[in-house]
Amino acid sequence: MKARIRITLKNGVLDPQGKAIQHALGGLGFPGVEDVRQGKYIEVALAETDEGKAKAAIEKMCKDLLANTVIENYSYELVA
Amino acid sequence: MKARIRITLKNGVLDPQGKAIQHALGGLGFPGVEDVRQGKYIEVALAETDEGKAKAAIEKMCKDLLANTVIENYSYELVA
Repeated sequence: MKARIRITLKNGVLDPQGKAIQHALGGLGFPGVEDVRQGKYIEVALAETDEGKAKAAIEKMCKDLLANTVIENYSYELVA
Repeated sequence: MKARIRITLKNGVLDPQGKAIQHALGGLGFPGVEDVRQGKYIEVALAETDEGKAKAAIEKMCKDLLANTVIENYSYELVA
């Protein structure tokens, strides 16, 4: 199975990288860009074929290593 | 509208950051991690409400600034 994980900064956490992109988009002439937030995207290919076990493993990976849960949220979807 | 953009390295492009994560997951005792690829995740909030126009703007943003199309692929979804 493959997991597609998105890790984003929590609301209220300053995101200077997102602000830099927003500023650059403004400079390139894109109007109406209200907000930009940058996060991480991680694809993990697992040998596990059981959806429940894969989900449990991905949850643990996110909590233990991939996301800093003090300032970041994570979400994921599993694809076969 | 809000766009959720995922930018990933093309197949065949070396991803040392993904390999580092894979190695770290192995060290933490996660079995069966076959591959890890790291990319970027960007959320852009647009004032535009027309889906066609928003799509065209996001396409152009990805090509002009957000993705390096020589080595990266991008995909996105629009949400209201």
